[in-house]
Amino acid sequence: MEKIKVAIVGYGNIGRYSLEAVEAAPDMECVGVVRRSGSAEGFPELAAYNVVSDIRELGKVDVAILATPSRKVKENAEKYLAMGINTVDSFDIHTDICALRADLDPLAKANGAVSIISAGWDPGSDSIVRALMQGLAPKGVTYTNFGPGRSMGHSVAAKSIPGVKDALSVTIPIGTGLHRRMVYVELEEGADFAAVDAAIHADPYFSHDETHVTQVDCVDDLNDVGHGVNLVRKGVSGKTHNQHFEFDMSINNPALTGQVLVMVARAAVRQRPGCYTMIEIPVIDMLAGDRETLIRSLV
Amino acid sequence: MEKIKVAIVGYGNIGRYSLEAVEAAPDMECVGVVRRSGSAEGFPELAAYNVVSDIRELGKVDVAILATPSRKVKENAEKYLAMGINTVDSFDIHTDICALRADLDPLAKANGAVSIISAGWDPGSDSIVRALMQGLAPKGVTYTNFGPGRSMGHSVAAKSIPGVKDALSVTIPIGTGLHRRMVYVELEEGADFAAVDAAIHADPYFSHDETHVTQVDCVDDLNDVGHGVNLVRKGVSGKTHNQHFEFDMSINNPALTGQVLVMVARAAVRQRPGCYTMIEIPVIDMLAGDRETLIRSLV
Repeated sequence: MEKIKVAIVGYGNIGRYSLEAVEAAPDMECVGVVRRSGSAEGFPELAAYNVVSDIRELGKVDVAILATPSRKVKENAEKYLAMGINTVDSFDIHTDICALRADLDPLAKANGAVSIISAGWDPGSDSIVRALMQGLAPKGVTYTNFGPGRSMGHSVAAKSIPGVKDALSVTIPIGTGLHRRMVYVELEEGADFAAVDAAIHADPYFSHDETHVTQVDCVDDLNDVGHGVNLVRKGVSGKTHNQHFEFDMSINNPALTGQVLVMVARAAVRQRPGCYTMIEIPVIDMLAGDRETLIRSLV
Repeated sequence: MEKIKVAIVGYGNIGRYSLEAVEAAPDMECVGVVRRSGSAEGFPELAAYNVVSDIRELGKVDVAILATPSRKVKENAEKYLAMGINTVDSFDIHTDICALRADLDPLAKANGAVSIISAGWDPGSDSIVRALMQGLAPKGVTYTNFGPGRSMGHSVAAKSIPGVKDALSVTIPIGTGLHRRMVYVELEEGADFAAVDAAIHADPYFSHDETHVTQVDCVDDLNDVGHGVNLVRKGVSGKTHNQHFEFDMSINNPALTGQVLVMVARAAVRQRPGCYTMIEIPVIDMLAGDRETLIRSLV
């Protein structure tokens, strides 16, 4: 069986964990890593790999895993799709997903390629669970409760407050889709905590949520990439009320994101050309192994 | 928008709840019910419907929901697929699913029709969750814990013991995929409870599980169609261990089965000809409504 040839574009946290998931996948091989610098320096685990600045140096690539920040996804996906290379990403700006899909779909089709977007855990695998729950009880309410875990967006927002040297904002689920923000700040020399505290509470990222700010000596000592979700729906199946559904996870965040990217990289080579979100793809296409064996063990 | 024309074949518990789910679906209409008797007698809610003994009396039918016992599914599916009518069923004999799929697939393709099999909650929607969990953590163990709820197979087995007039076997999850059987029996006049108790414990349906038999005056007084599941997986994403996933439901059993049949009836008209299990179908195809709107609200 020929292995799926995967390139990893970008080598931050997500790129690193994606590489581990590719290495653990029986049906894939990593043909190289694309970095702006084209250098493996500082990453001993990349010594065995071709690290390049241009994907064309890697020869045949079936799928490019775009492990870059969301704001870079469109530009990279367009570039690789135009070369006929399938792409997958974990674009996570919920409000812009439909626009990205509409942009990439014609380009993918024109080049006989597949792009699977917003494939992390939320958006991503959680989206499949949300869609399934809505199907099982078409009338009702779903709550997505995140955490406990670090919110990247909120941490960046807190860090941008004058006087803050480093910040960590932890999302605590308080039920019904509402969240408490526990913010830990390391201050610049001479900064005033009371002013920082007030500025964080006034910031639009925090002003609508219950927010607690705590001063610490070293934010990095608090860092933990564990995260979680609790997805809950109560609704109506047919005309029968009070049907309860719940999905929970407690996970290493970048490790799960890397694994999801690898799942959809596999699915990408099995779809017809076009751009898809995860709810548009059969789950079986995301799994390694013989189809009949999977049906026998999972259905 | 033209509605999907659905016929319901069989009108037991599942047929009745399937009809309610069709009635609640904005994009479907029930064009009739197929019963051996061809009669609506005893079912006032069928007064508004065409009840026939032969589906050809119903005119155009897009999908036949086979709400018949599992052992009748193959024969019925073959009959309707040969007419070019899509079929859906909740065939639940796990060990025979691949064989049924292999039988129906060529017939469906030859007649330009779609058959979606084993579409209940287990097998069915649980299968999607199991497949997703395996993708999210390819190494690890999944436990499917059923209940608390009535097991049809075990109830029938207990009822077949000499001296038993009626029986109910309730499945109680005790974790790690193991179950306790709480069996309630109503005895025939003069039957000996000790003998019945021993016979049930010796029966292969019960001999491997912790089983408790209780004599009651009226089994029907205990009947409750509530059921549930707890699906749990702990495993490895990429090379990162200790990733936890859990799915729970507490539901009215036939109502959920009817709803799942309706979900896949919708998906059936959207697939290419062939026979599928639920893990082979994109979840979005099971949902009512505009595709882009669904992506916007669920992804």
